[in-house]
Amino acid sequence: MSNDLILLGHGSGGRLSHQLLDEVIIPALSGIPSSEQNDAAILGRIDGLLAYTTDSFVVDPVVFPGGTIGSLAVHGTVNDLAMMGARPLWLSAGLILEEGLPLAELSHILEDMRGAADRAGVRIVTGDTKVVPRGKADKIFITTAGIGVIEHSLPIHGANAQPGDAVIVNGTVGDHGIAVMAGREGLNVGTDVRSDSAPLHELTQLIIAEADVALHVLRDPTRGGVATTIKEIAQQSGVAITLDEAAIPVAPAVRGVCSILGLDPLFVANEGKLLAFVAPEAADKVVAAMRAHPLGAQAAIIGRVEAGQQPGRVRMETVVGGVRTVEMLAGEQLPRIC
Amino acid sequence: MSNDLILLGHGSGGRLSHQLLDEVIIPALSGIPSSEQNDAAILGRIDGLLAYTTDSFVVDPVVFPGGTIGSLAVHGTVNDLAMMGARPLWLSAGLILEEGLPLAELSHILEDMRGAADRAGVRIVTGDTKVVPRGKADKIFITTAGIGVIEHSLPIHGANAQPGDAVIVNGTVGDHGIAVMAGREGLNVGTDVRSDSAPLHELTQLIIAEADVALHVLRDPTRGGVATTIKEIAQQSGVAITLDEAAIPVAPAVRGVCSILGLDPLFVANEGKLLAFVAPEAADKVVAAMRAHPLGAQAAIIGRVEAGQQPGRVRMETVVGGVRTVEMLAGEQLPRIC
Repeated sequence: MSNDLILLGHGSGGRLSHQLLDEVIIPALSGIPSSEQNDAAILGRIDGLLAYTTDSFVVDPVVFPGGTIGSLAVHGTVNDLAMMGARPLWLSAGLILEEGLPLAELSHILEDMRGAADRAGVRIVTGDTKVVPRGKADKIFITTAGIGVIEHSLPIHGANAQPGDAVIVNGTVGDHGIAVMAGREGLNVGTDVRSDSAPLHELTQLIIAEADVALHVLRDPTRGGVATTIKEIAQQSGVAITLDEAAIPVAPAVRGVCSILGLDPLFVANEGKLLAFVAPEAADKVVAAMRAHPLGAQAAIIGRVEAGQQPGRVRMETVVGGVRTVEMLAGEQLPRIC
Repeated sequence: MSNDLILLGHGSGGRLSHQLLDEVIIPALSGIPSSEQNDAAILGRIDGLLAYTTDSFVVDPVVFPGGTIGSLAVHGTVNDLAMMGARPLWLSAGLILEEGLPLAELSHILEDMRGAADRAGVRIVTGDTKVVPRGKADKIFITTAGIGVIEHSLPIHGANAQPGDAVIVNGTVGDHGIAVMAGREGLNVGTDVRSDSAPLHELTQLIIAEADVALHVLRDPTRGGVATTIKEIAQQSGVAITLDEAAIPVAPAVRGVCSILGLDPLFVANEGKLLAFVAPEAADKVVAAMRAHPLGAQAAIIGRVEAGQQPGRVRMETVVGGVRTVEMLAGEQLPRIC
């Protein structure tokens, strides 16, 4: 079927649907033959609180420097579970395919998806495929949902930032958004700009182990970037946050593209970054522990939660010594970034 | 915002996204304010096996006689859980919106979705919203995933059909597909054709209680219709199945539209129907119990599993006294039916 295209009949539920499942989708994703499949997957018993999340992915282009929509869909959902301090276990995948999508491209995306799941230690246990006519979708949209188990009893959530907390990021910001835009526009940015798309659950487990009760908030700054996520947390927790622009890691190539295009990397999407809010006495040891992990090698303290300040306010101490107010992304900077 | 349209900025993750969530999506679906929301929902502990499933919905039109894409997305996932004999508990919802979708239409769909969830006793606990440019989707696509708990220990699955089993359906077939097509094409079919979209978990619990170990297979004949589903089960179980055409309930209006358009209702999608394979000694009492439930009022035995016949073969004894072979739906009869 390798030179073939997706047909409307592949979404019929009939013979062509079964053929697509048996020859392309199941071999790539699950390995469980359709003859053994039922309406739902049966999972093991879980001793612990469950965490549950979902994300839809509509990124354009579907293959970009550093990833595809397939691995992105796995990482996005794994990371949402990781930000609750959960251990990700099972994923579901809903595929919406545009008539005319080459089967070879679908296979490539699904193999990348399976690879990401295998590396993250999660299983794609259930799925669904629909086909819409040409021009009613754009190649492929993927919606993943995920179930994880919470094995800690820490109150890690967005309303728990506390005065004095250090704000830690695990590395450079803006890589994903700029890589996707470079892929979309055919910008010649060489090999320096790649998406940071990655699963963060090992890093979050490490942070939990190191910080314990000193860990207050974990969140991944995806759409809207670090600025929007910090503003969200400031509002949820009713605290003021000050960022130190000079301390925020930005890759030189990303800084270069941003300055040409007039973008602020602080508002550009990430898919392999997290923000951790940690009590000040634990901040340095958490950064040191993160730096020992490949996904935290450039971990840095980039800000602090202020005591007795205006709730919800975020300010940035700029490189040139000034102070400016940081708000959420107002419009749409880069559509279809994830 | 009621006269407003969905903008690309509503998918940015920034200020407009938060506004859409706070003013439209959250009030309709969950009631949990965004200030209390995190990357994933935390669910209660579950004592039992979990069932997990997902479905994407791309139905055209998004509002049709008897339902909308919102209630359909709830029923589809609730029913996949019900077919495992599971009690549905929690749903996730991934929304992909087309730029330009009227917010009033989105609200109507989400309210219908919430109504369906409330009536089915499930909670929509987590969600995500993406926006794609005009012409890159078609109004709205919804992917639901769902978690249920299995509280029985019966081996109910598609490979468990046994010689002698009666094949039971809970009512008329083909209603959903014909209702959607009527809505799409503007056919004047009066008020007689309505989608059967409905949650089947109460009915499956009732069948389990009545049949116990005599219940072998439960499956909902959605895309591809009863014919395709019966063929799937014949193949999975390695049995031959004979259907009795005269016994299959078809609403007169659906039969009329099908005969005009040259469609066989046996291949037309259902969204509120189930097939139950039950040992012969329990069949009559199961049908009687089903008939006492509003969603099983027209329950009927429509076929039987044959002993010592060719595995995977499905035959139909026709109304005129002949016998014909039944295969899966070969192409695409009605695209975007769910």
